[in-house]
Amino acid sequence: MDKYYELDNESIITYIKEKMDFFEVDAKLESREIGDGNLNLVFRVSDPGSGKSIIAKQALPYVRASGGDWPLDIGRGEIEKRILDIEYDLTGGEVPKVYFYDAVMCCMVMEDLSDYIIMRYGLLKYEKYPQFPEQISDFIVKSLLLTSDVVMEHKQKKAYVKDFINPELCEITEQLVYTEPFNVGARNRLEDAIVDFHKENIVADQELALEVAKLKFDFMNNAQALLHGDLHTGSIFVNKESTKVIDPEFAFYGPIAYDLACVFANLIMNYISAFYSLSDEVVREDYCGYLRQTITDTVDLTKKKFYNQWDGVVTDEMAQVPGFKEYYIEDIFVNAAGIVGCEMVRRTVGFAHVVDLDNIEDDQKRYAAKTNNLLLAKEYIKYRASIVCGQDYIEQLDKIIK
Amino acid sequence: MDKYYELDNESIITYIKEKMDFFEVDAKLESREIGDGNLNLVFRVSDPGSGKSIIAKQALPYVRASGGDWPLDIGRGEIEKRILDIEYDLTGGEVPKVYFYDAVMCCMVMEDLSDYIIMRYGLLKYEKYPQFPEQISDFIVKSLLLTSDVVMEHKQKKAYVKDFINPELCEITEQLVYTEPFNVGARNRLEDAIVDFHKENIVADQELALEVAKLKFDFMNNAQALLHGDLHTGSIFVNKESTKVIDPEFAFYGPIAYDLACVFANLIMNYISAFYSLSDEVVREDYCGYLRQTITDTVDLTKKKFYNQWDGVVTDEMAQVPGFKEYYIEDIFVNAAGIVGCEMVRRTVGFAHVVDLDNIEDDQKRYAAKTNNLLLAKEYIKYRASIVCGQDYIEQLDKIIK
Repeated sequence: MDKYYELDNESIITYIKEKMDFFEVDAKLESREIGDGNLNLVFRVSDPGSGKSIIAKQALPYVRASGGDWPLDIGRGEIEKRILDIEYDLTGGEVPKVYFYDAVMCCMVMEDLSDYIIMRYGLLKYEKYPQFPEQISDFIVKSLLLTSDVVMEHKQKKAYVKDFINPELCEITEQLVYTEPFNVGARNRLEDAIVDFHKENIVADQELALEVAKLKFDFMNNAQALLHGDLHTGSIFVNKESTKVIDPEFAFYGPIAYDLACVFANLIMNYISAFYSLSDEVVREDYCGYLRQTITDTVDLTKKKFYNQWDGVVTDEMAQVPGFKEYYIEDIFVNAAGIVGCEMVRRTVGFAHVVDLDNIEDDQKRYAAKTNNLLLAKEYIKYRASIVCGQDYIEQLDKIIK
Repeated sequence: MDKYYELDNESIITYIKEKMDFFEVDAKLESREIGDGNLNLVFRVSDPGSGKSIIAKQALPYVRASGGDWPLDIGRGEIEKRILDIEYDLTGGEVPKVYFYDAVMCCMVMEDLSDYIIMRYGLLKYEKYPQFPEQISDFIVKSLLLTSDVVMEHKQKKAYVKDFINPELCEITEQLVYTEPFNVGARNRLEDAIVDFHKENIVADQELALEVAKLKFDFMNNAQALLHGDLHTGSIFVNKESTKVIDPEFAFYGPIAYDLACVFANLIMNYISAFYSLSDEVVREDYCGYLRQTITDTVDLTKKKFYNQWDGVVTDEMAQVPGFKEYYIEDIFVNAAGIVGCEMVRRTVGFAHVVDLDNIEDDQKRYAAKTNNLLLAKEYIKYRASIVCGQDYIEQLDKIIK
């Protein structure tokens, strides 16, 4: 087993038995490929006898949706393993425990979260997760503030910057989030009905493009903290009691605002999805009310924790100057609002959509959801300087989603 | 010769004869240690017979002025060699040609610039260098714009960021430029007469400290272009016709403004030095007039060339959006003014002074030069948003240096 090959539901069982003694020797293991991402195979291997299970995640050497045309360096799994270990330690276990990583097979074996659900699918079933704002804000603030120059010894931080430089996956974000959705063609995917709307309202808006360009260069140059890099609701496992973040393969040193924005934007798109999908008014009011509160709480708790934790962890001498904390934290939230808008645009007209919007069955409602999503996104990008707390997001939302 | 040892004027001759056939076999070589920096031994090895000569620069494993207490990684010479090669190519030879680098001895052998003088010493002799603004602006714009994300393929740029991460020498700048001079103690060196002035006007000014903190974090996080990192007039060789930049061992990916600021600040301090040193009014007016023009031209030509060269070299799609060029370039100049101020403060009260100010013999004049230098520096830092062209620098200068 000294050469990479793509695992399948049969070979994974042999592989796991050979590699670890997690299961009983005579256990009858079962495997199911449960991945729906673009970059990896993901298997759940379980022993129905004991009820024990693990997750094995193998990096693919190409983007799955491209059919093999878009090659990728499979070494990224090594970064992911190190990131998970770091985040596990920093956050006290808000990511899965990694059992081992195999550099030849580019395969990571980790804790199964079988009593969790991918948050995006939970929200699409109108589930509520009352602990989520508290827990995701905890993850965000600990994983980011503690890996920034505010706290880390600067030479050690630079060693991390170097180790986690991630050119290929950053390029995906640079193109798919910050470039292609604001232009025509490339890998954009638009349903016919919104092609003209996109051209007139997004592509033709040169002021918008300028703001996106500023955010793009900030993404490329601002090595502020060790980001997760892809923190949408598809990278978050939840249940009623707990939240676990997965899939940090896009991790690199970038602007703190980026992780916040992915969370905020995907909650907002789920709100838009629920608003247009739920026809029963009572049900809709209840669930949309829950989401509004979740958005507000997530934004505000995140900010509150940045402020509250700062004084206890800051080490840089100049970062302790009066006013710097406010400057640093408020700047994060301004940029986050801009990136929220970029994420919302790209999930509507770019290469990788969200099912939250694509799955709205009624054509008119789906059209309304997508076009209003684009209009709201523009507000967040252009007027980000005044969108710095939960209520600010909701006010913009209420102007357009009604 | 497979082990590092410190070279001296004798061993360097044996070493050079063994390593290269630049000189005739029977040449009677002479060597002189000409380094005055803190981090390296520098030898000029010459053959009086043929008139040929080379420069050998060996990295020391400690900071010379510290007497050995401040250890340094000697591998930095390898970076310097790669940087010189890159800058040689990008600028068409505005740095010395490197003949070879020896990784064991941490010794680089390069073109001798015997018909050049270190600019700082030339200016202290009231020499004029009419080509300097044209040539240094050319070096700055080519070496920086062409290594930024505006121009470079982004994955290649990230490979450079990784290769040139420079934790130890960046730490020197973070401490000696952005931290210690705005506090008391540490490695600061102040003459007695200005100890109180420094406390009252610099250390006690918390608004100033906040602006410096912002600039410090920009220095640490903003991986914009491949900086020289130490571009003061002691790192520049000049004569009447030509300019060559040396000593890029502080090179790393940082904010473009930093390189500009080192040049501008050191010209300004030379102006202050000349203003207070020259007692003959006619001579002073002539030379200070020359320096004012040099400052103005250097700032304005640099900006003009950023603008003029942009359209011909830009490759990033979003960087071509109308308005982005102006945003990007003006932001560089705003930050440059702030860093000019930091450099002026640290060269007056920090660990590494400039002789331009220290060598003013008359106590009262030296005191006036240093305290006014500090006051001017504060203006540049606090009001940098409105200091964006040559004339803006001169206007502030004229308010205080009179």
